[in-house]
Amino acid sequence: MRNSYTLTIGNVTRKLPLVWVSEELQIASFVILGDAEIVVEAASLISDKLPDADFLVTAEAKGIPFAHEVAKLKGMPRYIVARKSVKAYMDEPLVANVTSITTQKKQTLVLDGPDAALLSGKRIILIDDVISTGDSLRALEALVTEAGAEVVARAAMLAEGDAAARDDILYLEKLPLFPAE
Amino acid sequence: MRNSYTLTIGNVTRKLPLVWVSEELQIASFVILGDAEIVVEAASLISDKLPDADFLVTAEAKGIPFAHEVAKLKGMPRYIVARKSVKAYMDEPLVANVTSITTQKKQTLVLDGPDAALLSGKRIILIDDVISTGDSLRALEALVTEAGAEVVARAAMLAEGDAAARDDILYLEKLPLFPAE
Repeated sequence: MRNSYTLTIGNVTRKLPLVWVSEELQIASFVILGDAEIVVEAASLISDKLPDADFLVTAEAKGIPFAHEVAKLKGMPRYIVARKSVKAYMDEPLVANVTSITTQKKQTLVLDGPDAALLSGKRIILIDDVISTGDSLRALEALVTEAGAEVVARAAMLAEGDAAARDDILYLEKLPLFPAE
Repeated sequence: MRNSYTLTIGNVTRKLPLVWVSEELQIASFVILGDAEIVVEAASLISDKLPDADFLVTAEAKGIPFAHEVAKLKGMPRYIVARKSVKAYMDEPLVANVTSITTQKKQTLVLDGPDAALLSGKRIILIDDVISTGDSLRALEALVTEAGAEVVARAAMLAEGDAAARDDILYLEKLPLFPAE
């Protein structure tokens, strides 16, 4: 029985451990946080695929270094980060609560008021490390749409499971799921 | 009465809004997340000041882009991120609970088991966006020390309030506090 999956993005290869997330399913665990090398490689590869836009928008925490690196490559001095809760520094925060279709878990995402104002009427790209069930992406899209932004692309390093068949996202590599045999 | 503070790091200037955090105190709100430009500038300036080390270690979420950028400049393919809770992907996580001296609030920081193993016996630099009361830094230091790492430097973009007088940290600029007049 396999216990790891070998992922290659451009010139970077990682052996991802398989972890059980239920009695029926293992997933390949891809930890982007701290992996500067794979982020730099993936950002360089995805930058060429992205359409013109005013801002990149991601959600904390795992999307942050990837959004940072892509923003740099696209010559954008800033990107927007949706937080998972209202923070003390925020002014008139915009909050979206989205219930996961698959898990029924409620997810909260928050934009600081000035960031929401900045996005109004702008063309934006949603960016994340992995798109899997699509729940996180849907929550982020609900939030930026409420802020008045137009989503012109949805991008990720990896599309996991069924997400690989979506034609409304841009990604670099597929990440399979590993059902129990 | 002033309602903003002008911060300059190298060639980048930001006007930080002052926000009340109690009836007696305003702080200058510095939001590093999303500000690729100031992160790149600050990373370039602090890199030269850092001693040799095996790893940079930061805590989610605000320290992440800064650690990413400094790691790149130092030629380190990876850095370590302590999370604020145990995550599904973690294997034998190492958890530190530290109570804030100033607020009595308990803070939890977590290292994934393989990351903790990686840090054992290594020389590491703690890195964050702002050092203020020092509570977050203390929690992070407790965690990496438990993992068996040796802290050779503590670095931040900014030292806020009394932290500016510390001689055990490296930082680029001071950030004043603004008590009610």
